[in-house]
Amino acid sequence: MTTDRAREPLTNPRAERVRRVAALARRAVRTREGAFLVEGPQGVREAVRYRPDLVRDVYVDPDAADRFPEILEDAREAGLFVRPATREVLAAMGDAATSQGVVAICRMLDVPLAEVLAARPRTLAVLAHVRDPGNAGTVLRCADASGADAVVLTAASVDVYNPKVVRSTAGSLFHVPVVVGVPVEEVLRAVHEAGLRTHAADGVGDVVLTDAELTSPHAWVFGNEAWGLEPEVREVCTDVVRVPIHGRAESLNLAMAATVCLYESARSRPAGGPGATRS
Amino acid sequence: MTTDRAREPLTNPRAERVRRVAALARRAVRTREGAFLVEGPQGVREAVRYRPDLVRDVYVDPDAADRFPEILEDAREAGLFVRPATREVLAAMGDAATSQGVVAICRMLDVPLAEVLAARPRTLAVLAHVRDPGNAGTVLRCADASGADAVVLTAASVDVYNPKVVRSTAGSLFHVPVVVGVPVEEVLRAVHEAGLRTHAADGVGDVVLTDAELTSPHAWVFGNEAWGLEPEVREVCTDVVRVPIHGRAESLNLAMAATVCLYESARSRPAGGPGATRS
Repeated sequence: MTTDRAREPLTNPRAERVRRVAALARRAVRTREGAFLVEGPQGVREAVRYRPDLVRDVYVDPDAADRFPEILEDAREAGLFVRPATREVLAAMGDAATSQGVVAICRMLDVPLAEVLAARPRTLAVLAHVRDPGNAGTVLRCADASGADAVVLTAASVDVYNPKVVRSTAGSLFHVPVVVGVPVEEVLRAVHEAGLRTHAADGVGDVVLTDAELTSPHAWVFGNEAWGLEPEVREVCTDVVRVPIHGRAESLNLAMAATVCLYESARSRPAGGPGATRS
Repeated sequence: MTTDRAREPLTNPRAERVRRVAALARRAVRTREGAFLVEGPQGVREAVRYRPDLVRDVYVDPDAADRFPEILEDAREAGLFVRPATREVLAAMGDAATSQGVVAICRMLDVPLAEVLAARPRTLAVLAHVRDPGNAGTVLRCADASGADAVVLTAASVDVYNPKVVRSTAGSLFHVPVVVGVPVEEVLRAVHEAGLRTHAADGVGDVVLTDAELTSPHAWVFGNEAWGLEPEVREVCTDVVRVPIHGRAESLNLAMAATVCLYESARSRPAGGPGATRS
């Protein structure tokens, strides 16, 4: 994989290779190439460490090579070649402020819903029609931190490979299995068939969070940031659960509500119990 | 207060009055005027409903007057005059997308720390050197939702009257007492003297959240989004508490960590017990 020619630094920001990387900012190109761009040391570090099998290319400028030696070391151990490039080339590939001189191109990593369900998950996070990249990424990060087994972005949600989503996950995209592209009705049907309860998170839910049944396997279903969950979705779910509002606030935003719900699941989960799908 | 002349709609976006409203986007002007701008129906609604004593002026365009009749009604009940203005005038006053045709000018509402402590709070949220407007506003909103008694933004934090902070609070700025401008060392000293424990929230804390002592009155201390809490601050706090990370995520972001901590306080708080300072 490593050749002498490949060791030469990329210096031309207008090179075909550089333009192809930059083009991954567009969804149509990502779909065609089956790849996406990871910008910045945090994302690249986690990609190289946890999913080197997915990493096609890593590009660093000289400054970043000095500042993030652990990325180069992990890449070397994984047998990945890190291609040096000038600062101008990195800036042409993506958002210079975000990338801090290091980017990776990764193959798409989403997995089929059936595969996630076959692993007997205890906690899933389903994002139904979540459109804001920052919200989706933040919930994915929280799902990781709270020990959820997988995240499902339904068909009408934001693209998980959108650069802003990738960045907002802070590397968690490479830690948690992700399912994309399945309509919410199908997701709920399959989740129920797999024996999981479904909890629709909704400010008007009739079950308060601390009373929700979270000791058995379950999926949280979170709705759109502006209009929440559609009535048809709420009706299909086992329970509609509300995070208690103690003060005068009207509601919590999506990411905050998801954080409270997912951490409540973590608290209810017997540590290391059966059904754990992540090591 | 209401005069016939004042009922005439404002039509000139370049009028001195309009320029003075727009100038409130700058901190120096806010400080000089002792006032700040509230943009959008959610913020204005809560200001008019909960703190009409603070509201100097409300401006609406004809569309907004139709869409948000409850704001006009609450204003009328509170004896406030709502001044009609054209869409162009509203756009010149602030961010049109944010304001949706309705803005209010309010007097500053921060209160002295001593006043907050005299009310025997059970839970406080202290933001030390929090700089990002969205984070500060989100934590304030969460403090409200979780039933915290007050929020303290230390001297080196973002200005709570920054339009982005105001917007991120989603109206909670008018629900929870806010203290600003006191250096963090002084805040901690006063809080300890008032008999509260202090919990520094930090990913490396030696107390895990579920073991933290939250039944007695306490203040959460949250640090800067990038570099957390300074060691001197951590050392002074009663405990350094970490939110458990169950997956492979490195950390939670500030707003998520604060959400988990403040909701843990809510869960530990005896409902309606003594010391409640908010009705």
